[in-house]
Amino acid sequence: MIVCVLSSKEIRTLSNDAHSRPSAPTEELLYDSAVPTPSHGERARTLAGAVKTGTLCSVAKEPAGFPYGSFVTYAMEGADPVFFISELAEHTKNLRADSRASLLIAEGGEDDPLANARVTLIGSARLLEDSGEREAAKNAYLETHPNAQYYIEYSDFGFWRIDVESARYIGGYGRMSWLEIEDWRSGRPDPIAAHAAGILSHMNADHADALVSYCRAFSKATDTTAATMTSVDRYGFEMSAQTGAGPRPVRLAFDAEIATPDEARGQLVAMVKRARETLV
Amino acid sequence: MIVCVLSSKEIRTLSNDAHSRPSAPTEELLYDSAVPTPSHGERARTLAGAVKTGTLCSVAKEPAGFPYGSFVTYAMEGADPVFFISELAEHTKNLRADSRASLLIAEGGEDDPLANARVTLIGSARLLEDSGEREAAKNAYLETHPNAQYYIEYSDFGFWRIDVESARYIGGYGRMSWLEIEDWRSGRPDPIAAHAAGILSHMNADHADALVSYCRAFSKATDTTAATMTSVDRYGFEMSAQTGAGPRPVRLAFDAEIATPDEARGQLVAMVKRARETLV
Repeated sequence: MIVCVLSSKEIRTLSNDAHSRPSAPTEELLYDSAVPTPSHGERARTLAGAVKTGTLCSVAKEPAGFPYGSFVTYAMEGADPVFFISELAEHTKNLRADSRASLLIAEGGEDDPLANARVTLIGSARLLEDSGEREAAKNAYLETHPNAQYYIEYSDFGFWRIDVESARYIGGYGRMSWLEIEDWRSGRPDPIAAHAAGILSHMNADHADALVSYCRAFSKATDTTAATMTSVDRYGFEMSAQTGAGPRPVRLAFDAEIATPDEARGQLVAMVKRARETLV
Repeated sequence: MIVCVLSSKEIRTLSNDAHSRPSAPTEELLYDSAVPTPSHGERARTLAGAVKTGTLCSVAKEPAGFPYGSFVTYAMEGADPVFFISELAEHTKNLRADSRASLLIAEGGEDDPLANARVTLIGSARLLEDSGEREAAKNAYLETHPNAQYYIEYSDFGFWRIDVESARYIGGYGRMSWLEIEDWRSGRPDPIAAHAAGILSHMNADHADALVSYCRAFSKATDTTAATMTSVDRYGFEMSAQTGAGPRPVRLAFDAEIATPDEARGQLVAMVKRARETLV
């Protein structure tokens, strides 16, 4: 799965955020650095909320002490991942003997794998035995994995949760950090992420002229001749603008934070109107 | 990436190999259990050879002792995975302090993630310092990741290898085992794997009648009315046959082990000729 809002080779060229400044001279600053961008905590929470499978790392019983990676399905319950796993599985036996664990969540996409985003969530894993906790985990898990319904009552399966203690986020080349645990816990997944691919393909297919107007009116790329929208998030959107000096990244902010595709449309329509008034 | 020869929901219904017998009454044995099938060692080696990214599990320096999962690109050098990783990366710092490691390699495909194949390779990781070893690793790595050419001489990167000591293979539901290390080391990746998707789509699009003939002539599904080829490997191929009792799995063997798409074509053509003679 590709979560368009998060990364891609194109977005990599847009990494002029608070966390990493491009050093290549071609990646000229074309947008106001005051334009709000998602924080690493928000990007990581968005990624974790969009992906459904990852690698659970546990401490092996055999060969003893080796870190053991296994494929798992997970769901996010707030800021912590929950699992529904069999007592017979190696990882479950490992966690029963040593609760230390991590979950690696990686964005899909084959193009340039190291440009993709990923996050490692580290903490202690525990079997949820309290019925309230189990019910909450079950609801979260079934919402993400509805097909698990048919074995959700299996008696040799249990709900486990990693209580996240630290998290490392890598958004692609040169965009990485240990997250402050508060940034992880309080970060809200982007509500636009699930719609980003649709918005991008619509804008690029049907509103190429609007994209050019945005760049000409609101960015330093006033000589833009063509533009492609490369990402959209709750705070704004990014484009690759064809300029006299070659392709340049442009990020523009929405007037206000958005939460739905309808609000994205509203903002984009209002902005093109303003852009055309500006350009007259 | 989907490695068609290895698994899928359809192939899951064909899991009547030496390693797991279907218990459901609908999964009637329609093929001779003497028909050779790939071993778990061969399936795991094929998977490891087809995928290029995985999760490296190391022992964290911080928080100390926790198993730490990170996204990596890898290449197989024979039976052992090699990595080209930066000294600055967390996993490299971890491996320098504690060589114990594993690599989880998982087949892609979103449909039913737990039906996909995966293998965990466990062993000690070491930096390759001998120039001969480094050269061999570099060649293997560049063959798999030609785009790494542009940073292959970076001085703060090094080649690391996990010398595999044990391996656990999970081919999907109910098809799992700790591999005998000899089966892992001696298992040859299937030479047909990279061509399987093409063979399947060609046979299903253009030779649906041949598939029906195979089932009628060579399996117990003598009342087959339609069939879909679901996998092909060096030893034979599998189909889902529509019979009077519903869909049934059928596996047939080639006359001799094959190594190329041309040999697959030769076998398939010869078999349809024989099938039609049989059915006259």
